[in-house]
Amino acid sequence: MALKVGIVGVTGYVGEELVRILCHHPEVSEITAASNEYAGTALDRVYPYLRGHAEIEILGMEKLDELIDRSDVVFLALPHGVSAPVALQVIGKGKKVIDLAADFRLPEQKVYEKWYQTQHGAPELLKEAVYGIPELFREEIKGKRLVANPGCYPTSALLALAPLLKNRLVDRSSVIIDAKSGVSGAGRSLKLGSLFAECNENMKAYGVGSHRHTPEIAHYAGVLAGEAVNIIFTPHLIPVSRGIISTVYAKLSKALDSCSLREIYQDFYAGEEFVQVALEGEMPETKWVVGTNRCFLGVVVNKNMAVIVSVIDNLVKGAAGQAVQNMNLLFELPENTGLQQLSLYP
Amino acid sequence: MALKVGIVGVTGYVGEELVRILCHHPEVSEITAASNEYAGTALDRVYPYLRGHAEIEILGMEKLDELIDRSDVVFLALPHGVSAPVALQVIGKGKKVIDLAADFRLPEQKVYEKWYQTQHGAPELLKEAVYGIPELFREEIKGKRLVANPGCYPTSALLALAPLLKNRLVDRSSVIIDAKSGVSGAGRSLKLGSLFAECNENMKAYGVGSHRHTPEIAHYAGVLAGEAVNIIFTPHLIPVSRGIISTVYAKLSKALDSCSLREIYQDFYAGEEFVQVALEGEMPETKWVVGTNRCFLGVVVNKNMAVIVSVIDNLVKGAAGQAVQNMNLLFELPENTGLQQLSLYP
Amino acid sequence: MALKVGIVGVTGYVGEELVRILCHHPEVSEITAASNEYAGTALDRVYPYLRGHAEIEILGMEKLDELIDRSDVVFLALPHGVSAPVALQVIGKGKKVIDLAADFRLPEQKVYEKWYQTQHGAPELLKEAVYGIPELFREEIKGKRLVANPGCYPTSALLALAPLLKNRLVDRSSVIIDAKSGVSGAGRSLKLGSLFAECNENMKAYGVGSHRHTPEIAHYAGVLAGEAVNIIFTPHLIPVSRGIISTVYAKLSKALDSCSLREIYQDFYAGEEFVQVALEGEMPETKWVVGTNRCFLGVVVNKNMAVIVSVIDNLVKGAAGQAVQNMNLLFELPENTGLQQLSLYP
Amino acid sequence: MALKVGIVGVTGYVGEELVRILCHHPEVSEITAASNEYAGTALDRVYPYLRGHAEIEILGMEKLDELIDRSDVVFLALPHGVSAPVALQVIGKGKKVIDLAADFRLPEQKVYEKWYQTQHGAPELLKEAVYGIPELFREEIKGKRLVANPGCYPTSALLALAPLLKNRLVDRSSVIIDAKSGVSGAGRSLKLGSLFAECNENMKAYGVGSHRHTPEIAHYAGVLAGEAVNIIFTPHLIPVSRGIISTVYAKLSKALDSCSLREIYQDFYAGEEFVQVALEGEMPETKWVVGTNRCFLGVVVNKNMAVIVSVIDNLVKGAAGQAVQNMNLLFELPENTGLQQLSLYP
Repeated sequence: MALKVGIVGVTGYVGEELVRILCHHPEVSEITAASNEYAGTALDRVYPYLRGHAEIEILGMEKLDELIDRSDVVFLALPHGVSAPVALQVIGKGKKVIDLAADFRLPEQKVYEKWYQTQHGAPELLKEAVYGIPELFREEIKGKRLVANPGCYPTSALLALAPLLKNRLVDRSSVIIDAKSGVSGAGRSLKLGSLFAECNENMKAYGVGSHRHTPEIAHYAGVLAGEAVNIIFTPHLIPVSRGIISTVYAKLSKALDSCSLREIYQDFYAGEEFVQVALEGEMPETKWVVGTNRCFLGVVVNKNMAVIVSVIDNLVKGAAGQAVQNMNLLFELPENTGLQQLSLYP
Repeated sequence: MALKVGIVGVTGYVGEELVRILCHHPEVSEITAASNEYAGTALDRVYPYLRGHAEIEILGMEKLDELIDRSDVVFLALPHGVSAPVALQVIGKGKKVIDLAADFRLPEQKVYEKWYQTQHGAPELLKEAVYGIPELFREEIKGKRLVANPGCYPTSALLALAPLLKNRLVDRSSVIIDAKSGVSGAGRSLKLGSLFAECNENMKAYGVGSHRHTPEIAHYAGVLAGEAVNIIFTPHLIPVSRGIISTVYAKLSKALDSCSLREIYQDFYAGEEFVQVALEGEMPETKWVVGTNRCFLGVVVNKNMAVIVSVIDNLVKGAAGQAVQNMNLLFELPENTGLQQLSLYP
Repeated sequence: MALKVGIVGVTGYVGEELVRILCHHPEVSEITAASNEYAGTALDRVYPYLRGHAEIEILGMEKLDELIDRSDVVFLALPHGVSAPVALQVIGKGKKVIDLAADFRLPEQKVYEKWYQTQHGAPELLKEAVYGIPELFREEIKGKRLVANPGCYPTSALLALAPLLKNRLVDRSSVIIDAKSGVSGAGRSLKLGSLFAECNENMKAYGVGSHRHTPEIAHYAGVLAGEAVNIIFTPHLIPVSRGIISTVYAKLSKALDSCSLREIYQDFYAGEEFVQVALEGEMPETKWVVGTNRCFLGVVVNKNMAVIVSVIDNLVKGAAGQAVQNMNLLFELPENTGLQQLSLYP
Repeated sequence: MALKVGIVGVTGYVGEELVRILCHHPEVSEITAASNEYAGTALDRVYPYLRGHAEIEILGMEKLDELIDRSDVVFLALPHGVSAPVALQVIGKGKKVIDLAADFRLPEQKVYEKWYQTQHGAPELLKEAVYGIPELFREEIKGKRLVANPGCYPTSALLALAPLLKNRLVDRSSVIIDAKSGVSGAGRSLKLGSLFAECNENMKAYGVGSHRHTPEIAHYAGVLAGEAVNIIFTPHLIPVSRGIISTVYAKLSKALDSCSLREIYQDFYAGEEFVQVALEGEMPETKWVVGTNRCFLGVVVNKNMAVIVSVIDNLVKGAAGQAVQNMNLLFELPENTGLQQLSLYP
C-alpha cells in the first residue's frame, strides 16, 4: 500500500508525534502537514530531531484543500472546537478522518456543548463517528470514515475497566479513577502551570470533579457495562514529560483473589499486542511503555476491591499511536504496522 | 530553656533533617549524634551544607550511653526493629524518647510482628507509647516519655480523614487512600529502585495491598471513628525528592457540597498553624509545603464522594518536623518553636 | 531597627523570593509591594505557600508613589529598561534603591544600550550606582543610595575569579566560564523554552557568545584584575528549578598545586560567611546552597589550568539574597541578618 | 545475513541497550546473553519493557563457552578488567569481539594500568585492537576482529574536536572539554551518588583532573592532530537519565568566523548519517539525540575561540549504538542498519 496521509496541526506535540510514527511507517508513502504556526517553514527547523527522517514543509491553514486533496486519510491534531468543521471539509471531499480532538468522542451534542462550553461545529457527523479504542471497539471501527480518537486519560481508564465491566464483576455505583499524568498532556501552548519551574519537584491534583475527560470515561464505561457507571475521576500533574498511570478502584461484587482476577484480564486481552497484563509479582511502570503504543495493566485484589494499575504513554497509546492503530484498521493493514517501537530504559 | 537533644541514626535523611531543624531551634542548646556509619567524622563532612550551622561529631553506636547521658530527649531515626531496644535503654536512664521508626506505632505486638516480620524489641513499652500527631492527639501526648512518631503516609492520610471520621460523615466500609510519594521516603540506603535512572521519568504503584503503613492508618482511623474503618491504601513512587500527596476518597453518608465540607474542615483545624485548609478555588501542591512542617488540605465533594487532597513534606511533617513538634509539646514549649521555615517556590 | 521595605515587581520569582526572605527578617517591620499583575489581590492567593507568613496586598503600579513614601528602601524586581525610571523616582523621593535588573550594572551607558538594545532610562544615575557583591566591593557599597544588584551568572563567576585576578595568578587573554543554570533563571514569564516538556530531560547551551551577562562579567573581572580580561562565557540550561554551577578555566601564569591554590582562596575569603571554600576532597554541589545565600567554591589545579567550580542559588545569592545582604550593608546591620537559611538535603 | 550475536553482561544498562537495538536489527537472527546476575531468568522479567520483543534466557557466566560457540560476534558489556580475559576467550574461538569496556581503548598497557589501577588481562591483544569511532577511523575498523568501543565522553569530545585537529585550526596547548552527563552513565550498580535523592535537583563536577576518560581523549586527539594535545577535561553530573553535552573550547590559530567554521564541519562530516552539524541559528539539545545513534554538533566562534557543543545519547552513540555500528562495519552491512530510531520529543 502507498498511503498518503495529511496531518492538520502538525506543530503541537500530538502532531509531531504523528510524524515521528508515520515517517517510518512502511505503508505510508507521503505526509502532507499544515499548521497555524510556522507556515512555510521546514518541519525539521521546528523539530530538528526529525532532520533526515521527515522532509516536510509546513503548509498554512489556507492550503487545507490542497492537503486534503493529496491525502487518503487526514489526522486532525487540533484544539477541540477547531476540529469539527475541518472534519466536515475532509469528509466532504470523500477522505477519511481521524480526529484527535474531543469533538466526536461524546455522542450527545448537548453533553459535548455543556462540558466544552462551545457550540459543536459539525453535529451532523456525530452519528457516524466511532470511538477508536481498537481493543474494545474493533468491529465498529472497521470500514468507518470518521474515527474519534480517545483522550489519553479515557484510554488508560477504559482499558483498565473493560474486563471488570464487561464481565459484571464490580459495583457500578462508585468507580474511582485516580490518574497521574506527565506534563506533555497539557500540550505545547504557553500556560503558567506548564512552566518547568512550576511543575518540577511538584505534585498536584487538578480539575477535581470537573475534568472534561469525565463524561467520556463515564459514557464508554456505560457502553461496556451495558448500564450507567458512576465515575469519580481525579487527575494529577506529575513532573515527567510523558506517561499516565491510572489507578482504578472498584468494589468487587463477588469475592475473587488477585490470581483469578489476573486470569480474567489475561483472557480478555489474549492476543492483543498492545495490552499487556503484568505477570504475578510485577507492577507496571510508565517507563515500560513510554515511546510505545502499549498499555500495561497491573491487577490486584485488595480486600473487597479490585485495584487496577494502567500505564500508557499519553502521546502514543493516548493519542498519536492509537490514531495510527486506527488508521491501520481502517485500511485493513495489520494493526501493529509501524507501531513496534520499544521504550527506552532507563 | 536549654534543651539537650540526642539523635541516634543521624546520617540517614531523617537524622540529618532533625539536625537541619534543631540546629536553629532557639531552645536547643546542644545536639549529640550517633550513627553506625561515619563514626568519628564531623557531620559536615557527610553533609557539607550543614557547615557553619552545626558542629557535630558523629559518635559510634558504642557510645550510646554517653549520648543518652548528655541528652534530655533522644530522637531515634533508626530502622524498625533496631529502634525498640534503644528506646528501652533511653527510658531506663530516665530520658524521653521520640521514636521515628515503626516500633511503637501499632499498639498490638502481634500486628506489628506480622506486618514487620520481626520480633518486637520492647513490648513492655507498647502500652505507654503515644502516637504523635499533635493536631489529633495533643492531650494524650503531653507529659509522656515515649512518643511513636507517625509514618509519613499515615500523617498525610489521617489529617485528611480525621474531620470525616470524627464527624461520622462517611461510609467506613471502603475508604481509599491513593498516595504518591517522592523518593527520599525510601531513605538513603542503596536499593536498585532508588537509583536515579530507575525512578526518573517514571511512575509506579508499589506495595499494593501490602504496604506496612496500612495497619497504622487503619488503626488510627478506627480510633478517630470509634469503629473499624476499611482502608484501601495504594502508594506510588514519583520522581520528586520530597513530598507526599494523598488523595483520599470516602463515600459521604449524607449529601454535602464542597463549600459545606470545606467549612467543616476549617472548623476542625481552626487555630492549627500546621494544618491549612486550601481556600475555594485552590488545590494544594506539594511545593507549597516542601521544607515546612505544614499539611495543606484540599476539600472537594465529587458527586457522592468526599475527595480530600493532602500534601506534606515526608521528611518534615512526615518525620523530623513532626518529631520536633512533639518535642515542643513534651517540654511545654510553643508547638511552632523552631518550625516556621517557609518552602521554596519555585 | 524597624525597616520599611518596598518591593516593585513582587509577583515574579525574584520578587516573591524577596518576600520569602524579608518576611522573617528581624529588622524589617513592614513590606509594601507592587506589581503589574494581580493588583488588588492578596499575595498569598498568588503564592499560597506564603499564607500565614506574609499578609501583603499587591498594589497596582499606579500606586508607586504611595509605596515609595511608605518605604525606607525599595527593591526593584523589574525587567531591564523598566527599572531605571522607577529608580529615578525613588531616589527623587530620597529613598534608597536596590535594583535587581541590569540597568545600573554596566557603568557605560553605550555598552548597556548596545547589549540590551534599549535606551537607558536614567543615565544620570549611572555614576553613583555601586555594584553589589559585598564580598568584593564592600567598602564601595556602604553609604550608597543606589545598588546595582549583580546578575546571577556574574555573581557565581566573579566570586570564582576574584582570588585569581586580584592576585594576578592567571593569563587574562582567555578566561573561560562554562555555566549551567536551572530554569527559574528565565523567570516566570511564558516562553516556549521554559515549558516543562521542553526543558525536562534536556540540556542545551544558549546565547553562546552573545549572552547579556558577558559584558558585566568582563567589566568587573577587569576591575578586579586592574586590566582587561578576555571572557569567554557559555551558559547552559539544565533541568533543575534552582541553582547555578559555573566552571571557570584560566591558565595559571605560575605553577601552583591544588592545595596551594585552595589556601589562596581560603585566605581571600577568610571570615566571609557566605563564601565557603570546599575542603580537600570535596567538590561543591548546587544542592549544598539551594535556598541559601551561600556560594561554595571548589578549587583544583589541572595541569597548567586553574579549574574553579562555583555554585550558588540563582534566586538567592544570585538575586534576592544578595539584595538583602546589600540592604543590611546599607543600613549598617550585620550582613547575615535574616540570611541564615539552610538548604534542604535531599 | 543471519548474524548470531552474543552479549556478555546483558543486565546492565549497556547490555540491555544492546538488546533493545539488536532485537529489531534486520540482519540479526539470534541473540544469546549472559550475566553474573539473574542467571536462569528470562530477560523480560528483569526488563519487562522487552516482553514480546526479545525472548532471551539469561545464561550464567559459566556458560560462556556455549554463548561464544553460538555467536558470530560477541559484545562485552562488562566492567573494565573483567572484559579482557573474556575477549581473549572469544578471539581464541575465532569469533569477533566488540568490547564496550575500557580494556582495549588505550594502546599502551602502562597507561591503562596506571589510570585503571589494575593489571591488564590480555596485553597481547592490545596491538590488534582498533578504536571504534567509524566516522573517524572507518578504514582501520574494517576487517578487524577486536573493536575497542569508545567511552561516552570520548565519543562526544572527539567528534567535536576532529575537524579542528585534523585541519590544524587550533592551539593544542590547552583544549578544554566541559562535559555534562546524565546519570545512566554511572551504570546500574548501587552507589550512593547514583540515588535519585542525591542527584535530583543537583549539579556537580566530579573527577576534576582525574577522570579515566582523560587519557583516552588525549590519546586519540593526538592521533587526529598528529601531535600531542593537552586536554583539560571536567565531567559534571546532571539530573537527566540519558544524554551528554560536551562543550569544547580551543583557541583558534587563525581568525575564522562562525559561518566559515561551520562549513568546515559540514564538509568534514558530509555524508555521515550519524553526525549532524546544527544549522545556523540552532544549538543542539540532548533531547534531539536521546534514543538515537546521532551526534549533533553546534559550531560557534566566540572571539578567539572555537566553541563546539556536542550532544549524544551516552548509551547509544556513546555505547551500544556505536557498538552496533561497528558490528555493521565488521560484517560489511550498511552502517545504519538497525540504527534509525528517532528520539522522542518531548
